[in-house]
Amino acid sequence: MRCDVLAVGTELLLGQIVDTNSSWLGEQLAAHGIDSLTQVKVGDNIGRITGHLRALLEHADAVIMCGGLGPTHDDLTREAIAAVMGVELELDEVIGERIREMFESRGRQMPDNNLRQAMVPQGATVIEQTRGTAPGLICPVSVTVDGERRERVVYAVPGVPHEMRDMFDRAITPDLHRRSGQEAVIVSRVLRTWGESESGLDERLRPIIAELDERGNPTLAFLASGWEGLKVRLTARGVDESAARAELAPFEDRILAELGTNVFGFDDDTMESVVLGMLAERSWTLGCAESVTGGLIGARLTAVPGASKVFAGSVVSYATSVKRSMLGVEYDLVVSEEAALEMAEGARVALDVDVVLAVTGVAGPDTQEGRPPGTLCVAAVWPGGSVARTLRLPGQREPMRQMSVISALDLLRRSLLASDD
Amino acid sequence: MRCDVLAVGTELLLGQIVDTNSSWLGEQLAAHGIDSLTQVKVGDNIGRITGHLRALLEHADAVIMCGGLGPTHDDLTREAIAAVMGVELELDEVIGERIREMFESRGRQMPDNNLRQAMVPQGATVIEQTRGTAPGLICPVSVTVDGERRERVVYAVPGVPHEMRDMFDRAITPDLHRRSGQEAVIVSRVLRTWGESESGLDERLRPIIAELDERGNPTLAFLASGWEGLKVRLTARGVDESAARAELAPFEDRILAELGTNVFGFDDDTMESVVLGMLAERSWTLGCAESVTGGLIGARLTAVPGASKVFAGSVVSYATSVKRSMLGVEYDLVVSEEAALEMAEGARVALDVDVVLAVTGVAGPDTQEGRPPGTLCVAAVWPGGSVARTLRLPGQREPMRQMSVISALDLLRRSLLASDD
Repeated sequence: MRCDVLAVGTELLLGQIVDTNSSWLGEQLAAHGIDSLTQVKVGDNIGRITGHLRALLEHADAVIMCGGLGPTHDDLTREAIAAVMGVELELDEVIGERIREMFESRGRQMPDNNLRQAMVPQGATVIEQTRGTAPGLICPVSVTVDGERRERVVYAVPGVPHEMRDMFDRAITPDLHRRSGQEAVIVSRVLRTWGESESGLDERLRPIIAELDERGNPTLAFLASGWEGLKVRLTARGVDESAARAELAPFEDRILAELGTNVFGFDDDTMESVVLGMLAERSWTLGCAESVTGGLIGARLTAVPGASKVFAGSVVSYATSVKRSMLGVEYDLVVSEEAALEMAEGARVALDVDVVLAVTGVAGPDTQEGRPPGTLCVAAVWPGGSVARTLRLPGQREPMRQMSVISALDLLRRSLLASDD
Repeated sequence: MRCDVLAVGTELLLGQIVDTNSSWLGEQLAAHGIDSLTQVKVGDNIGRITGHLRALLEHADAVIMCGGLGPTHDDLTREAIAAVMGVELELDEVIGERIREMFESRGRQMPDNNLRQAMVPQGATVIEQTRGTAPGLICPVSVTVDGERRERVVYAVPGVPHEMRDMFDRAITPDLHRRSGQEAVIVSRVLRTWGESESGLDERLRPIIAELDERGNPTLAFLASGWEGLKVRLTARGVDESAARAELAPFEDRILAELGTNVFGFDDDTMESVVLGMLAERSWTLGCAESVTGGLIGARLTAVPGASKVFAGSVVSYATSVKRSMLGVEYDLVVSEEAALEMAEGARVALDVDVVLAVTGVAGPDTQEGRPPGTLCVAAVWPGGSVARTLRLPGQREPMRQMSVISALDLLRRSLLASDD
């Protein structure tokens, strides 16, 4: 089964919006075992839209059209599909009424052009809108290819990504599976790792990857995600959710066994949420002493809702004078494990917390105290223990600071895990 | 003149890489007055690549192909162009030698398939590589459209964005202008604003926008960029750089006069760099007292290289207990202008700085002290003055925190400007 994509909108060609919809659709279709072999962007021009739709339907069993379903005269997807189907557009009274009601409920008069969104090609089925005002469409089309009659289908969905994704999951994938005769449900599992490079993970997982490549289901992908960590994503297909999960589970277990504590969390976990969770379990409060990161560790921790149960605050001692006056740092070199430990001890007293994570380093562009950009000294103190390390991170300023955040939190995580043993 | 884009690579269709190249090209081409009316993504399949290239050349004067120039058997762009031109590929000895030397200089043996990158369709001109190993190509093609012979051109560039952009600027735009007979240079100017909504700016600039729409050069675009501010970008075209700047300058002056202090900077300025610059001029040091932002203001300030000349540090007083113990906040309600001012005064003493910016607020999801998510109380103190304000920002957690950063810095900026008068 082949399903191509036609993204409609002059703003896509002008680069005002990057077409992420067709990338997302391509990824989803591949996970469902459906080929997407051509993806086209075209402007709001009726001749070119119908021309490309006809051309795609020569080779593809299905085409998903994104965009061009709004209320203005520039929105031509409905007209183009009707032209290719060889039918008229007619008003769908139910949709028209719903749009009218939506305006009334907001106390506004509906501009007449909004009824354009209730126009449906004869013979098409509506995908009901749950969020926006434009419904989607499922449109059967007969085309003649090499003298033979072929049955195709065109799906039309809004260009707004969350509306498009919702309609794809809710209506298009079931319809595609029904047409292809393959019933399938997709489940994914993301293992979030830190501590191994992509090539290191690849090497450790080589036998498992070879086996997956041979089976074709589940599939495995690495997604390097900066300070979100390096994600290992397993995607499995099955006739229903439990069958898909059964395909996935044994491989997840084997990867976990291989990678051990490099896996810090799953799916939507972040390093911050995981560390906050470990501390909450222990009823310990957390503070930070930040130099090179300027507040970034605290900023990331407090991005987690409910962080206030654990995180009390930080002393951002960017200037050496603040390290000395507020944290009592006495060690001569401020980019050192010794200074990081003194910062941590000083902040424990100043903030009156159980645990402190402290970082000092060089983000560049200049060297400091003879140490090159990318140098990070990190220390952590907790009830009953402490640790200090020097790490070499990337030398560019922002990557260095972002890597400092996840690396420092990871050191605290591993220290807490080790102190349990 | 019409120049379409054909992006080549199965990874684009699988959504492993989002095709940002064609968006960038579309934007650049539009700025140069060249239409890009269709942009196609196709996988690494010789039949489909040549098919789409032929189809695009029916309507477009030029086609830019991105990707498929690497050394492996999957890289088929050269073969596709040769097929459409109806010529053979031949080895370009100069390029071949250069690739060989590059491997030798790294002390490595060149795998034979790397010579594929030195293969050039007969009659094509090479765009020399400055960064990667794959050169680009300029390929004249004759096609027959409606029985008439037409001269077209196909450009091939690597898919790596910085190599593609470099070759586009260096070789493709001059060639396009030569072919179209229009010589043009593009210059842009970004006015960075804060304090007016997009629709507010639109209304204030309406007469200027109407005039620009009529002239067509320069063009104006609004780019809402979150906590980077709302950008107003002017783009002008001229026969040379000084002619383009002459088109642009009078409109820049008129927009500046209309928007006044809402314009905080130009081009690569950020609110952080501007505020740090104002303080550096006054030889004042800066500290922060952050609650709701958890360290984000300090993190953003220290993202600016050289921030250490001005920024000394912060007290991140996330917990109420830290506000009281470290900053001496006595006011009962901690989300209040009174508490924000106390935080600022406390941090001025604790950090021993001239200027302090303090924020306390509610990021949600829960209300605090009866105040809804989105409430921000901000205070600033400086030698000879102080200010406190309560702002209503978006209620979602991260947008609220990000808007807090730019809004707080903007209050400090405007206060410093006003104190000069």
